[in-house]
Amino acid sequence: MRNGELHIVSTGNQQPEEFAKIAGDIHPYITAIHIREKHKTAKEIYQMIKRLLDNQVPASKIIVNDRLDVAHVMKVCGVHLAYHSLPVDEVKERFPDLRVGCSVHSLEEATLAQKQGADYAFFGHVFPTKSKPGLAPRGVEQLRSILSSVSIPVIAIGGIKPGNVNEVMEAGAKGVAVMSGVLEANQPLVKAKEYVSELII
Amino acid sequence: MRNGELHIVSTGNQQPEEFAKIAGDIHPYITAIHIREKHKTAKEIYQMIKRLLDNQVPASKIIVNDRLDVAHVMKVCGVHLAYHSLPVDEVKERFPDLRVGCSVHSLEEATLAQKQGADYAFFGHVFPTKSKPGLAPRGVEQLRSILSSVSIPVIAIGGIKPGNVNEVMEAGAKGVAVMSGVLEANQPLVKAKEYVSELII
Repeated sequence: MRNGELHIVSTGNQQPEEFAKIAGDIHPYITAIHIREKHKTAKEIYQMIKRLLDNQVPASKIIVNDRLDVAHVMKVCGVHLAYHSLPVDEVKERFPDLRVGCSVHSLEEATLAQKQGADYAFFGHVFPTKSKPGLAPRGVEQLRSILSSVSIPVIAIGGIKPGNVNEVMEAGAKGVAVMSGVLEANQPLVKAKEYVSELII
Repeated sequence: MRNGELHIVSTGNQQPEEFAKIAGDIHPYITAIHIREKHKTAKEIYQMIKRLLDNQVPASKIIVNDRLDVAHVMKVCGVHLAYHSLPVDEVKERFPDLRVGCSVHSLEEATLAQKQGADYAFFGHVFPTKSKPGLAPRGVEQLRSILSSVSIPVIAIGGIKPGNVNEVMEAGAKGVAVMSGVLEANQPLVKAKEYVSELII
């Protein structure tokens, strides 16, 4: 038996107070909460992290998208890099205390992430998702092929619902990442627990 | 006799190649070159710095606006913070090797910057400038009043031309910051030298 990881990623649509309230409720059940707010300034992200900490979310569960300066200043655990971010290897070298993840969309990108020292990778989108309208999902088969080629933990993202968690876990994913599926659910805490119960394999 | 500082600040309008070409020509005559590109990603700023270094601009003269993670990764000398950036005191504590400056627009902001440990401040805009249309300039008198109240170096910015450099230097500024006045001049090197010759008082 193993417990898969549950990463919750902010949607960019919620008010900071609402997001922090939900994070404060669900944090004991999740592995990490990602602040992925592409249109927010450094100061706004800094203030969001303060709200999370005020709501008892442990710094060891907070991951910041792109802005590793904010992550470093706030002493949170990690940073998640995108295609427009700094290169993984340079970040690992200069911010050795940060857990560094990145988003990958192909075997080539996954291999490069591993080579550059990424601590984990997000792969997606695996299933159809309203946040990527019109873009064909990459599917569980491609996930499986990546998992057979890299050894770093791979987290599945994109259209993950409690009903398809088992499929990606059986394929060998380390866990799943969820955005609106939890954060925009009627009862986020209930939904988070539902995911958690599916993550035990 | 003292030599005032000449800071050149990118306009956000130039192609990275053009900016790097000019920086490569003028760097021996200036104190610092600031990369202030609010709409560029971390990776794009990183690539701009690489171009500057390729053009022999010393890292000790490069200052990055807002993105201290990029500054830290690229081992350049400093970061310039704006109102939407991380707080000066937190940055100083967590990035002790970076020279940290910030923009101030009043005596209150200048005093706070000093208290928080800023290494220098930009004050402006001093004179009318096309980059702040319709906004009244703050003027040399307000600059003078700030200079009498804080001890950190203050650099005047906004509408600085060779013909008014002397006025701000006489008021006690440590130097001036120029954007289009050099970068969009027909002959940037000639213009930079013109400013330098006015900065000796």
